[in-house]
Amino acid sequence: MATLEEMGQRAKSAARKLSAAGAKKDTALLQIAAALEQNQEKILAANMQDLIAAKENGMSQSLLDRLALSEARISGMADGARQVAALSDPVGKIIEGGVRPNGLRVEKVRVPLGVIGIIYESRPNVTADAAELCLKAGNAVILRGGKEAIHSNVCIAETMRNALEQVGLPADCIQLVQDTSHDSANAMMNLTDYLDVLIPRGGAGLIRSVVQNSHVPVIQTGVGNCHVYVDNTADIDMAANIIFNAKTSRPSVCNAIETVLVHKDIAEKALPAIKARLDEKNVEIRGCVRTRSILGDSVVPAAESDWETEFLDYILAVKVVDSIDEAMEHISRYSSGHSEAIITKSYDNAARFTAEVDSAAVYVNASTRFTDGGEFGLGAEIGISTQKLHARGPMGVNELTSVKYIISGNGQIR
Amino acid sequence: MATLEEMGQRAKSAARKLSAAGAKKDTALLQIAAALEQNQEKILAANMQDLIAAKENGMSQSLLDRLALSEARISGMADGARQVAALSDPVGKIIEGGVRPNGLRVEKVRVPLGVIGIIYESRPNVTADAAELCLKAGNAVILRGGKEAIHSNVCIAETMRNALEQVGLPADCIQLVQDTSHDSANAMMNLTDYLDVLIPRGGAGLIRSVVQNSHVPVIQTGVGNCHVYVDNTADIDMAANIIFNAKTSRPSVCNAIETVLVHKDIAEKALPAIKARLDEKNVEIRGCVRTRSILGDSVVPAAESDWETEFLDYILAVKVVDSIDEAMEHISRYSSGHSEAIITKSYDNAARFTAEVDSAAVYVNASTRFTDGGEFGLGAEIGISTQKLHARGPMGVNELTSVKYIISGNGQIR
Repeated sequence: MATLEEMGQRAKSAARKLSAAGAKKDTALLQIAAALEQNQEKILAANMQDLIAAKENGMSQSLLDRLALSEARISGMADGARQVAALSDPVGKIIEGGVRPNGLRVEKVRVPLGVIGIIYESRPNVTADAAELCLKAGNAVILRGGKEAIHSNVCIAETMRNALEQVGLPADCIQLVQDTSHDSANAMMNLTDYLDVLIPRGGAGLIRSVVQNSHVPVIQTGVGNCHVYVDNTADIDMAANIIFNAKTSRPSVCNAIETVLVHKDIAEKALPAIKARLDEKNVEIRGCVRTRSILGDSVVPAAESDWETEFLDYILAVKVVDSIDEAMEHISRYSSGHSEAIITKSYDNAARFTAEVDSAAVYVNASTRFTDGGEFGLGAEIGISTQKLHARGPMGVNELTSVKYIISGNGQIR
Repeated sequence: MATLEEMGQRAKSAARKLSAAGAKKDTALLQIAAALEQNQEKILAANMQDLIAAKENGMSQSLLDRLALSEARISGMADGARQVAALSDPVGKIIEGGVRPNGLRVEKVRVPLGVIGIIYESRPNVTADAAELCLKAGNAVILRGGKEAIHSNVCIAETMRNALEQVGLPADCIQLVQDTSHDSANAMMNLTDYLDVLIPRGGAGLIRSVVQNSHVPVIQTGVGNCHVYVDNTADIDMAANIIFNAKTSRPSVCNAIETVLVHKDIAEKALPAIKARLDEKNVEIRGCVRTRSILGDSVVPAAESDWETEFLDYILAVKVVDSIDEAMEHISRYSSGHSEAIITKSYDNAARFTAEVDSAAVYVNASTRFTDGGEFGLGAEIGISTQKLHARGPMGVNELTSVKYIISGNGQIR
C-alpha cells in the first residue's frame, strides 16, 4: 500500500500531465460514465459488503440510506460524469488581459489548482462526483472517504482509474486513501508539500476538525444554519409556502432552514398560517415566548442553543422580532453564513436585507433551497463554501481553478 | 490599551459600516492624503525616535534605509492614497448574473472580505499603503508592524484615524496593534472570530512562520526565488540585458531573479556576454561545473543550497542545462512560484514554457521585474501572492474582496 507521501508525489506528477490534457479530460469522463454502468454489479456487490458490516455495527437507518447504492444511484454517478464532460473547460480561459503602454502583453489565464484533497464521510457517490469535477478542472485528487464505505469506494475508484488509463491519462489523477483511520486524515491535513487545497465534505464535526487542524489550506463547506425572515409587509401565503418548502422538502441538507424570524406586527396572522403548513409534516416548532403566546403550549420553548443549531431534521426554531434590524442582528450573531431569505413587499427592506446580510446567498421572496450549483447555473458543484476566501457559495469547476499571468514581450526591462 | 479581542470587535463593527460607505471611502482617502502631508513634521519626528533607537541597537544600514522616512516618502504615501482613491470601487460590482428558467434573478456581487490583518516588519510606509488599499475595498484593517517602527506607525495610524473621523467614518476602520511582542503576532494568528484573512508582509522567515502557525486563513506573499532560462535560440544581447535588469535594478525585491539557467548549445557565447554585463555591478556569480569551465575560476562554485536561496543581493546562481525540459524541471524543483522568464526566438519553446511552468507570472522575452500591480495595470497592490488559493500574482483591490449571491424571486420554491 502506497504511503500518503508517495500518493502525493504521484498525484503531483499526474496533475502536471492533466494540466495540459484538454479535451482528453472529457473523453475520460465519458469513459468513466460508461465504466461505472458496466461495473454496476461489481460496485453493488462491494456496497453490499459495506452495508452488511454497517448493519452488524448497528448503523442507524438514515446513515444506511446514505451508504446504500442502487442502480439508480450508480446511473446518477454516470450521468454526473456526462454532465461534467459537457461543461465548458475552465482551464486556459483568458479572464483578463491587454497590452501595456510598454508593449508587454499581459494575460490572466485560468489554470488548475494542482492536487486537491477531499475528506468525506459515508456517501460513496462522493467518490465519483468529487473526482469527476476535480478531473474536469485539470486537478489530480486524493480521496479519503469513511471506513463504512471502503469497499464501495475502492471499487468505484478502481473503475475510474481503469477508465483513465484506457484513454491514456495517468490512473493517479484519481487516488483513494485505503487507510481510513484518524491517522490518515491527520496525515492529509499535513501533506502541505503535495496538496494545494483540502475540502472536507460531511457533517459540522468533520468540517470543524479539518478547519482547526489542517496545515493545508481548507475550503470550508456546507454548514448551514439558514434563516427566513418574515417582514411585516410579507405575503403570508408566500411566507408559509416558502418556509414549508425550505424546511421540509429535504431537511437533511445544508440549504434547508433552521430558524424563522417573524416581525411582531405580522406575527399574529403569519404564525398560525406557517404552523398550519408545518403541521402537514409534523415539524416540531421551538418558539420564543411571544411565539408561544400566539401559537400556544404545543410549541416547545426555545432554548438559547436552538438558535445555534443546524437541526437537519423536522425541527424549526421560531422567534418574533421587533424590526428588520433585530432580525439582521440575530442572523449576524447565529448564522453560519450560508443562505438567508427575506419575505417582503417592501422595496427598501429587500434592498437593506440583501445589502447588509453577510451570507453566501441572500434571497428575496424565494426558498433558500435554491443554493446549489445546478440551480444557480454553474453546472455540478463540489460543495457550498461558507468562507470568504477563494470561493463563496456553490463551488463549480471555476472554483477548482487558480490563475496565472502570462507576459509576452520583446526585450522589455524595467 | 485595547486587547486584540476588543480591537477585533471594533473592527468587525467598523467593517459593517464601511461595507456600505460607497464614495465616502474615496473622500476618506483624499483626507488621509492631505493629513499625511499636513502632519509631515510630526511623522518625521516620530520616525527620528525610531531611527535613534535603531542606531543604538546597532541596526544595519540597509534596515535603517527601510525604516527611514523622508518628505519624499511621506509624499509617496499621500500620493498612494490619492491613486487608490482614483481606482474604481470593486464593492457592489455585479460579476455575473442572469435570470434562471424559473424566473429567479441570480447576481454574483463583489463584497468586502471584512476584517484584514496585516503583519509586517520595519517599513513604516506599509502602515499607510496597506490601510489605504484595505479601506478602498471596504475592509477594516488591523495592522501589526515591527517594534523598530512603532513610533512612526503610531503617528501614521493616528493621522489616518483622525482623517476617517473627519469624514464621518469610524476611526476603527484602521487600528494599529501597539504591543509589538511575539505574543501579539501569535494572538493575531488565533483571532479567528474577527479576522477574515491574515497577510504577512516581510521576509521569508516571517512569512513561513505565519503560514505555519496561523489559524486565520493566510495569503502568502512575496517570497521570490525567480529564474531566467536562456534558450538555445535566444538573442544573446537581449538575454544579457534582461538578466542585468532583473538582477541588478533592485536586488532586494521579490521579483528580482536569483538563478539563470543557460542551454548548453548557447552557453559558450551567452555566458561571457551575461557576465560582462553583471560585472558592471560586481555581481557575484555562483556557477555549476560547466559554467565555471566556460567563465573560469573567478566564478564561485555553486552549492546545492544556492539553487534554493533568495539572495536578495548582488549574487546570482548560474547553471548550464541540457534542454528546456531540464530547465523547467529545475524551476519546478526550486522555484517559489513567483516569476520566471524564458529568453527565446522559438515559438514552440515559448508556448511550452508559458504552459508548463507553474508560477504566478511566466514571461517570454521580458524582465521578471514587471511582476507588480502597477505594471500589470491593477493599480496599487498589497503584495504578490505565491499561493494558488484566492489570489495569485499581484493583489490589487479586487483581490481584497469576496463575493456573495443575491437572489430575487416572487415566491419560488424547489
